[in-house]
Amino acid sequence: MAHSPLIKQLIDSFTCLPGVGNKSAQRMAYYLLERDRNGARQISHALTQAMEKVGHCSSCRILTEYELCDICQSLKRDRQVLCVVETPSDVYAIEQSGSYRGTYFVLMGHLSPLDGIGPQQLHLDILKSRIKNEAIKELILATNATVEGEATAHYIVEMLKPYATTITRIAHGVPIGGELEYIDGSTLGHAFNGRQKFS
Amino acid sequence: MAHSPLIKQLIDSFTCLPGVGNKSAQRMAYYLLERDRNGARQISHALTQAMEKVGHCSSCRILTEYELCDICQSLKRDRQVLCVVETPSDVYAIEQSGSYRGTYFVLMGHLSPLDGIGPQQLHLDILKSRIKNEAIKELILATNATVEGEATAHYIVEMLKPYATTITRIAHGVPIGGELEYIDGSTLGHAFNGRQKFS
Repeated sequence: MAHSPLIKQLIDSFTCLPGVGNKSAQRMAYYLLERDRNGARQISHALTQAMEKVGHCSSCRILTEYELCDICQSLKRDRQVLCVVETPSDVYAIEQSGSYRGTYFVLMGHLSPLDGIGPQQLHLDILKSRIKNEAIKELILATNATVEGEATAHYIVEMLKPYATTITRIAHGVPIGGELEYIDGSTLGHAFNGRQKFS
Repeated sequence: MAHSPLIKQLIDSFTCLPGVGNKSAQRMAYYLLERDRNGARQISHALTQAMEKVGHCSSCRILTEYELCDICQSLKRDRQVLCVVETPSDVYAIEQSGSYRGTYFVLMGHLSPLDGIGPQQLHLDILKSRIKNEAIKELILATNATVEGEATAHYIVEMLKPYATTITRIAHGVPIGGELEYIDGSTLGHAFNGRQKFS
């Protein structure tokens, strides 16, 4: 026995969500149909609205339905420091840590030539013109500590060399609470190379 | 920093899906916004369509957008045997096992007076009238082997006593592949009480 066409269509559409396979999609479809049709209508409405209206902040490229996002609009942020991250989730993680009061530039990915993601796709031209035109004293590169993140950071350093801005990279090392015996060698290497004077 | 209102609305709406908490909802929202806007539109469309049009089969109460579901319409099914299950998922599980060729009645739940689910909510009147009016020789009760499932099965037995239909309950015992030392006592009890002559 097959699901009825509309139910099948619903299940199939759910499988495009990350982390949702056929079984979970089926569970979601039946759950909504049997128990939460209002919730389903809300999801549908929220999706339509978001897909229609949410675009990128013209200054930092984060996702927002406004021309400028909250952070870029805020008068409380330090506009002399700019932090480059890969995704909006990185911004939320940094914001939740409460350790940064500057502004951001969100690449929405990392360089990945094989997937056709080059400097244009990351809108590095916008980053370059911000460095040129705004009074930015320090550019902090907070791309991921992965091969792609490192490569992207290096590319940005090369690109922005002609401009007199200090470029820094966030520290890599042993995470707080981490026990040395469980830390991988590459991280320990970074931790030793990045050691600082005990203050 | 907060998510922009439309993104927040989207994340909140996803949390009404079963098994989706705030973190996964956030991941889904960003995934769709960043990488699969078409998929998002498909989900929205499929949801609207399904919620508008999918109702219950008038004969077996399974979810379908038609008056009668595939199984109830099929000419290949044995209409003298009727199997009562709790949910549509049970029907799919039984169909996939390929061990049953009769028709179904789907309760869409089980008796649960504390949650306000009584005989009316399970539409047991439809079941009763089918037993009265159709030439059903055997009614197989395949509700879950839980307290609620058992209680529901007993209620149905009592309700249908006046009618001359054979009522059976699916067997409970050691699952195939199960090793006795890992099976709980209650299941073993059922397995012993339900023992059959070796053929």
